[in-house]
Amino acid sequence: MKIAIAGAGAMGCRFGVKLQNAGHQVTLIDNWQDHVTAIQEHGLTVTTDDGQDHITPMTAKRPADVTERFDLVILFTKAMQMDQMLQQLSGILDNQPIVLTLANGIGNVETIERHVPKDRVVAGTTVWSSSLTGPGHITVTGTGSISLQAIVPEKFDELPALIAALNAAHLNASPAENVLAAIWKKAALNSVLNTYCTLFDCNIGEFGSLPNWRTLNDAVLTEFAAVAKAAHIQFDAAADTTLIAAQFDPDKNGGHYPSMHQDMAKKRPTEIDFLNGYVAQLGKKLGVPAPTNALLTQLIHSQESLRGIK
Amino acid sequence: MKIAIAGAGAMGCRFGVKLQNAGHQVTLIDNWQDHVTAIQEHGLTVTTDDGQDHITPMTAKRPADVTERFDLVILFTKAMQMDQMLQQLSGILDNQPIVLTLANGIGNVETIERHVPKDRVVAGTTVWSSSLTGPGHITVTGTGSISLQAIVPEKFDELPALIAALNAAHLNASPAENVLAAIWKKAALNSVLNTYCTLFDCNIGEFGSLPNWRTLNDAVLTEFAAVAKAAHIQFDAAADTTLIAAQFDPDKNGGHYPSMHQDMAKKRPTEIDFLNGYVAQLGKKLGVPAPTNALLTQLIHSQESLRGIK
Repeated sequence: MKIAIAGAGAMGCRFGVKLQNAGHQVTLIDNWQDHVTAIQEHGLTVTTDDGQDHITPMTAKRPADVTERFDLVILFTKAMQMDQMLQQLSGILDNQPIVLTLANGIGNVETIERHVPKDRVVAGTTVWSSSLTGPGHITVTGTGSISLQAIVPEKFDELPALIAALNAAHLNASPAENVLAAIWKKAALNSVLNTYCTLFDCNIGEFGSLPNWRTLNDAVLTEFAAVAKAAHIQFDAAADTTLIAAQFDPDKNGGHYPSMHQDMAKKRPTEIDFLNGYVAQLGKKLGVPAPTNALLTQLIHSQESLRGIK
Repeated sequence: MKIAIAGAGAMGCRFGVKLQNAGHQVTLIDNWQDHVTAIQEHGLTVTTDDGQDHITPMTAKRPADVTERFDLVILFTKAMQMDQMLQQLSGILDNQPIVLTLANGIGNVETIERHVPKDRVVAGTTVWSSSLTGPGHITVTGTGSISLQAIVPEKFDELPALIAALNAAHLNASPAENVLAAIWKKAALNSVLNTYCTLFDCNIGEFGSLPNWRTLNDAVLTEFAAVAKAAHIQFDAAADTTLIAAQFDPDKNGGHYPSMHQDMAKKRPTEIDFLNGYVAQLGKKLGVPAPTNALLTQLIHSQESLRGIK
C-alpha cells in the first residue's frame, strides 16, 4: 500500500516505520522543518525498550512538497492542527484515499468530513504510545493495539484489507463495534486526568490521592453522560470512572504526567477544546448545560495565556 | 470601653492598638502562643508607612486565660476559626457584650448567632489593611474605613455609641444601610480575585490581563446573583465587575497577591468555604445550582491537599 502519515510526530513515526518495515511504501509528512530535514539526512532513529538505536531511512516531506497520491492517509496531527493539515494536503486527496484518524480528542471526524467524503473516513483509537525525543528521533516502549471502524460502514468494504495491511506491520488492529463510543470513552478519561493534572501541576497518582478526586471526576463525567445521551452516543460514566481509577497505581500510570501537562510545560497549545471544551460546546448546541467542562476549558486557556502560549 | 479583640492577627492588632491609644481598655486574644508571648514580653511592634517601629505595651492572652467581661468583643478570627473562638470565649459572653464582626467571607453572622443573641450582633466591612510580619509584629500602610450595621437594627440602640467609640480611634466608622449587601459585595470580589489568583498562582494584575477574565468573572458572579436573589439579598453583578476591574491597575492592587494566595503559599487553610463554597452550599439549599462556585471550591481544596494543608 502507498501510505502517507500526515503529522509524523511521535506516534506517526512509530506507525510509519512499522508499516515501512512490513513492505508498505510510506511517506512521513510534517510541518516541523528540523524534524523533516533530520529524517531526510540521517533517517529516522528509534530507541527501543532495550536502549538500542535503530536507524531506518525514510521518506519525509513538508506538506507543500507532497505531490504523489496515496491509498491510505493516516492522520496523526494534534486535533487543533488537523484542519490546517487537511487544507495543506487538499491537492492530493482527489483520488479518494482512505483517511484514517487515530488521534485523541472528540470532533476529529467532523473536521475530516469537511475535507474528505464521509464514506472514505475510518476512525479509531489506539493504545500504542511513543515519545518524540528530538528531530528525527523517537523513543518507544511496550506494544499496543488499534480498534477501528468506518464512519459509514455500509458504504465501506475495504475494512478487512485495511486491517490486514495494518496487521502485516503487527499493529494489532481489530474492528470496533462502536468507534464513537470508544473515542468518547478515551476522551472522557483524558478530560479528567489530563485536565486536572495540568491544572494542579501533578501526576496521575497525585490526582488519585486527592480526597475529593471522585467529586472532581463526577463533575466532569456526569456532564459527559448527559451530553452523550442527547447526542445519541453510548457512554458509561461508571465504567469510565473504573478505568480512570485503574490508572492511579504507581506500578501502572501513577507516576505519569499526561500529555496535556507535557504540552503546558513545553509551552505548546493544549487539546482542551477537543476534550472538555468539545463537550461544553456540543452541550450548548444541544441545550444540555455543561458548566463544569466549560469552566475547566476556560481555566486551561487561562493557564496557556499566563505561560504565553499562542 | 472595655474591648476584647478576639483573633488578634494583623487586622486585630491594628484595630487594638488604635483603640487603646484612644483610651479604651483593650485585651488582645489569640490562640497563637508565640504571638501572645511576644506581645506580653515586648509589647506590640507596629511598623508604619515611614519604616518607623512603634512599640506599644498591650494586654495579650490565650482564650483560656480570659476571665474578665467586656463591653465590646470585636471578632477578627478567620471565618473558619470563628466557631472555635466563640466556643472558647463562651464563658465570658454571659454579660451580653456587643459582638462586632468585620471579618471577610459570608456566613460569619450565622456562626456568631449560634453563640450570641442576635440582637447583640453588629456586622460590617472594612477596607483597613495590615500584615502580620511575625510574632508580636505588624506592618501597616494607608488608612481605611468601616461600614457597619446591627443585625436587628430595631432592637439595638447602641450603634451611635459604638461608632463614636470606634471613631475616637480614627477608624472612620459609619452606619451601613445594607450591611449584608456590603458583605456579599466584598465576598463576591474575593470569590473572583482570591480564588482565581490562587488557582493560577498569579497576582491581580496578571489575572486582569487574561483574555478570558470576564468569562471567568461572569461564571462566578452570575451564580452569586442568582443565589442572592433567591436569598433576598441585594447584589449587583455589574457593579461588582466594575469594582473588580478597578483592582487590576498596577498603581492600585495589580501587583498584589490576594490573601488566599498568601494562605496557600504559607500552607494555611484558605477561606474558600466562606466565599465560593458558601454560595455553592446556599444555592444547593435554595435549589439554585451554582456549579462554577462548587467546582472552584473543590479545586482550591484539591490544591490545599496537594500542599499538605489540613
